[in-house]
Amino acid sequence: MTYCAGFLVRDGLVMMADTRTNAGVDNVSTYRKLRVHANDGNRLIVSASAGSLSTTQDAVQRLHQGVPNPETGETETLESVSSIYDAALAAGRALRAARDGMESLEQQQISFDATLLVGGSVGGEPLRLFLVYPAGNCIECGPDTPYLQIGENKYGKPILDRALCYDTELYEAVKIGLISFSSTMRSNLAVGLPIDLVTARQGQSGAEVVHRIGPNDGYFAELSRRWSEVINEACRAVPRVPFGPPA
Amino acid sequence: MTYCAGFLVRDGLVMMADTRTNAGVDNVSTYRKLRVHANDGNRLIVSASAGSLSTTQDAVQRLHQGVPNPETGETETLESVSSIYDAALAAGRALRAARDGMESLEQQQISFDATLLVGGSVGGEPLRLFLVYPAGNCIECGPDTPYLQIGENKYGKPILDRALCYDTELYEAVKIGLISFSSTMRSNLAVGLPIDLVTARQGQSGAEVVHRIGPNDGYFAELSRRWSEVINEACRAVPRVPFGPPA
Repeated sequence: MTYCAGFLVRDGLVMMADTRTNAGVDNVSTYRKLRVHANDGNRLIVSASAGSLSTTQDAVQRLHQGVPNPETGETETLESVSSIYDAALAAGRALRAARDGMESLEQQQISFDATLLVGGSVGGEPLRLFLVYPAGNCIECGPDTPYLQIGENKYGKPILDRALCYDTELYEAVKIGLISFSSTMRSNLAVGLPIDLVTARQGQSGAEVVHRIGPNDGYFAELSRRWSEVINEACRAVPRVPFGPPA
Repeated sequence: MTYCAGFLVRDGLVMMADTRTNAGVDNVSTYRKLRVHANDGNRLIVSASAGSLSTTQDAVQRLHQGVPNPETGETETLESVSSIYDAALAAGRALRAARDGMESLEQQQISFDATLLVGGSVGGEPLRLFLVYPAGNCIECGPDTPYLQIGENKYGKPILDRALCYDTELYEAVKIGLISFSSTMRSNLAVGLPIDLVTARQGQSGAEVVHRIGPNDGYFAELSRRWSEVINEACRAVPRVPFGPPA
């Protein structure tokens, strides 16, 4: 399993991914799922992947070698695309081609589907964030719901729905994201540390922070402990139900 | 969709279910999914159902008309079983028979699976709580994880994992359950009010509270509002991330 989340708030972009993969509970490994494909001042392209590891690795390989664009006849790579939207479209073509190549392998109801988040900016355009579906189509993140999730998204969604909005400050958004990851990891063992994350500030070129939260990260341990504590305080702060015998 | 949760804490039993069913987003109805089958002082049997509405209605019908027990050769109903465990086993047989009867209808990848929670006590035994799977087998709720969920369970699980334990007071558990429902309803439109709930106290016969939280319930609206508020306060109370530029 995997959990990846991307936020596009007024201040900028946050992308986060865990690193746990598993084929059954007795075959658990660590793989980087957040990839910084370009970060050279002019071009910031970051992806996060969930789903079949073989399909995502195949798609990434195709993106680096070049993916044919049937509309232009040209072969595109993440180094050549002229916008982050074109990067998302190229990623969609790569994902679709990778999955189609796997179809002959399908057996025992194993899915070779994979999903991507693609975010960043090319040549000074505003930061944008996309979710690329297994079929190759994509949707863009907008200010009304300023996040996109892929993978094991449900456990970590309530905190985003309650606490994250377009006006949330960039590193407050990172903190809310880490709470979302902590909740997911507590409820599903198939999501685990390390967590990789990238932030970028609107109007500035390149990534602001590229960071890995490792298995012994003191801040993350303290965040998880504190969150349990404040959630229990929050429960107590909600009034008692108005039925049943008096306390 | 549906969300049902059952808690078995030291003080007693809580069972809750929403009432929304849907076949597509344009065919949404209200059906009671929490059923009090018996509550006569000697026998408390409560079920909650998730999954195919036709399968659960068929299973409930079978339970009232009588389900053959292949081990004894007798026909059992919820009025005749001698323990809540036997009630769960009979419910499992009814569920399996109902689903098997649907198999000839299966098409277009529609699932006729249904899952039940069955809780209560018969003849003065301690309160017990079971989850009955579509195949008819069941598992019992124990003190290490004092809850069971069926249906749309993920959005509402993190709060249970953080705040509910075996020593949680009975109506504090109800409140935590309502927060779990509120989180689920906020993240999935297919779960909705009214919420039905039953509580029973360990060592006392019969239900203590049988209650419906209706669409205009003031307490539930205030609980949802307050919870958003305290969650945002809780976020602010967690220390800022130790990377990135100073605030």
